[in-house]
Amino acid sequence: MLRKFNDIKIGIIGGGQLGKMMAIEGKKLGLKFIILDPQPDCPAATVVDELIIGSFYDEIKIKELANKTDVVTYEFEHIHADLLKTMEQEGYKIYPSPSTLKIIQDKYQQKKFLTEQGLPVPKFKAVTGLEDLNRAVMELGLPILLKSRRGGYDGKGNYLIKTMEEIEIAYKSLGGKDDTLMVEAFVDFEMEVSAIVARGIYGDQKVYPLSENIHEDNILITTIVPARVKRAIEEKAKAVAQKSMEVLGGIGVFCIEMFIDREGNVLVNEIAPRVHNSGHYTIEGCSTSQFAQHLRGILGLPLGSTNLRKSSVMINLLGDANSKGTASIIGVEKVLKESEAYLHIYGKKESKPQRKMGHVTVLDSDINEALGKAQLIRGYIKIIGEEAEYND
Amino acid sequence: MLRKFNDIKIGIIGGGQLGKMMAIEGKKLGLKFIILDPQPDCPAATVVDELIIGSFYDEIKIKELANKTDVVTYEFEHIHADLLKTMEQEGYKIYPSPSTLKIIQDKYQQKKFLTEQGLPVPKFKAVTGLEDLNRAVMELGLPILLKSRRGGYDGKGNYLIKTMEEIEIAYKSLGGKDDTLMVEAFVDFEMEVSAIVARGIYGDQKVYPLSENIHEDNILITTIVPARVKRAIEEKAKAVAQKSMEVLGGIGVFCIEMFIDREGNVLVNEIAPRVHNSGHYTIEGCSTSQFAQHLRGILGLPLGSTNLRKSSVMINLLGDANSKGTASIIGVEKVLKESEAYLHIYGKKESKPQRKMGHVTVLDSDINEALGKAQLIRGYIKIIGEEAEYND
Repeated sequence: MLRKFNDIKIGIIGGGQLGKMMAIEGKKLGLKFIILDPQPDCPAATVVDELIIGSFYDEIKIKELANKTDVVTYEFEHIHADLLKTMEQEGYKIYPSPSTLKIIQDKYQQKKFLTEQGLPVPKFKAVTGLEDLNRAVMELGLPILLKSRRGGYDGKGNYLIKTMEEIEIAYKSLGGKDDTLMVEAFVDFEMEVSAIVARGIYGDQKVYPLSENIHEDNILITTIVPARVKRAIEEKAKAVAQKSMEVLGGIGVFCIEMFIDREGNVLVNEIAPRVHNSGHYTIEGCSTSQFAQHLRGILGLPLGSTNLRKSSVMINLLGDANSKGTASIIGVEKVLKESEAYLHIYGKKESKPQRKMGHVTVLDSDINEALGKAQLIRGYIKIIGEEAEYND
Repeated sequence: MLRKFNDIKIGIIGGGQLGKMMAIEGKKLGLKFIILDPQPDCPAATVVDELIIGSFYDEIKIKELANKTDVVTYEFEHIHADLLKTMEQEGYKIYPSPSTLKIIQDKYQQKKFLTEQGLPVPKFKAVTGLEDLNRAVMELGLPILLKSRRGGYDGKGNYLIKTMEEIEIAYKSLGGKDDTLMVEAFVDFEMEVSAIVARGIYGDQKVYPLSENIHEDNILITTIVPARVKRAIEEKAKAVAQKSMEVLGGIGVFCIEMFIDREGNVLVNEIAPRVHNSGHYTIEGCSTSQFAQHLRGILGLPLGSTNLRKSSVMINLLGDANSKGTASIIGVEKVLKESEAYLHIYGKKESKPQRKMGHVTVLDSDINEALGKAQLIRGYIKIIGEEAEYND
């Protein structure tokens, strides 16, 4: 424990929906929060004790955040790891550790590290130029995934190369420079899954039930828990996730995204050193939400039970594809009529095509009932912007 | 629905723990909140969009609150009902209705109204002077409860007269003036219970499972749900609660406190036109918390399911009896080690003897297990102030 429980102040870099949900969970415990975000009207702005407005790369603001709080954490990973590392050496408490963050930020280093630790990942290679990319394609075959090593999310920074003709297009579209790209063998997966793993500062761990994730256009659309896989595969995936957390020395909550291939192999896809969209179901679906659990982890408090109350289906509420601008959320009443359907609206003013604006979690003792209700609800709600958006 | 869902602003008179928990539930739905409270550091202060600092009787501030929001509600009942009534006539949306509030605020009027509507209450009488009090004691017998008609809570404003000698003492201690007092026959109850009832603006109703309440020194200590009474009594009590809500025209969430006497009769004790301490268990114990339900009610949204997930026991965390001043909350780690135990700390800076500083809800499929765990947890946590407080 850092000091008197009811005086603890937590700093969060990032005030999006993840920061908002974390602050809400922490406020129940009487914890105080200061958030750094460039947007004065970010989702977390009105549930925190103080908002520091500044860039995630602004050294002065990040130090201000750290000086005002007992521990600093973050809601997304594309931040200034080197600065945080220096600050950690100066004695600031920053969890997850910036050393862990540095490994994860570079997807090539992440995969290399996991491989060295004996964890299963798809075949991969760093790419240093177009010629090198051609060689890698020869070696690993097509289709192949070209990835930016840093900064991607929701599929941004990824290009799936299916034919030889696409190699150069892909290379150029990711703005190919030396040391910024990697390739990964395309996994013809049976299922995409993820495990939310929590680890405390003393190395204690808890893992949540496995999530089955369905993506469209690389954006998470639906999470189904427990994942509809055989028990043995679930156990294998959870073990891979827990070992990944262990070797990375993760503190707080991480999300380990994995593929289950057609032979039942588990391969680590990507690791997020933070609470994750595929863990939102834990708010109502589990005894301890991923947000409360993350706070427990970074504060050195006992980790809470990860028991699943009922089968859970989470659907994301995305901004309508054909409009943008000031958001109108339509159909809320119909959602609220459904029992055991939990609506979350993040409070973003502007809608954009595919922007994550909220989510709904449906609980049911029967997973098919939950899925059916979630599908109905998806049809009830619409989030539109006031201006038309023309996509070619 | 008042207007675009994601623009709705709710005004709450009062920023204590009830306002805080209501705002937290509303924030999940993306609702906006403005709160009026005299204390800049009230529990709700940091989870709302705006805090208006002012007295609950400040007409200008109350109008400011109403002008800035779509609907005004309140977290406690000792507020300026006449002003609110005038404002309602001017077209402001205020729920529950100030007319309902006016009846409830005066405990004598409340009882009289309920009796006229055929609802069972203990025998009662208005008292207009010491002589009148003596007559009432002759008529109703001893022991008898002398009550201030207005403003009491947690037993403040009540005096249980057990002997003839106490009559004058009781009268003076409540500052007896004409038309400010009433007496009530003392009910030798088997159990104190309450029902949280929700009613929407269209008259739709939902009732929660019956709460069994245990008080010490007139302060709620423990709530056990479902109340350990026969099914027939539970149904009778819920019917009395629902009829009370109906005849009062309540909107939002009310708490109907009742006695079960030794013959199994149900008698209405008091009605709170608001969310209530004995309904805190609903946050984790039910599909829809009383706070989310209140918001649904006053916004004309569909009421949510009141299903009980598991048996629930709620214990209040009160300020230590022998100290006051800046609070230290001790023993949190031990609570967090217990599964299905949900800790809430309200964030009040100052502890005072018996002040409500937080609560814990324990869920278990076995009510005795839940009770046992709650008793253990009561021993774990201590809330002390930094100065000694000497009670004579």
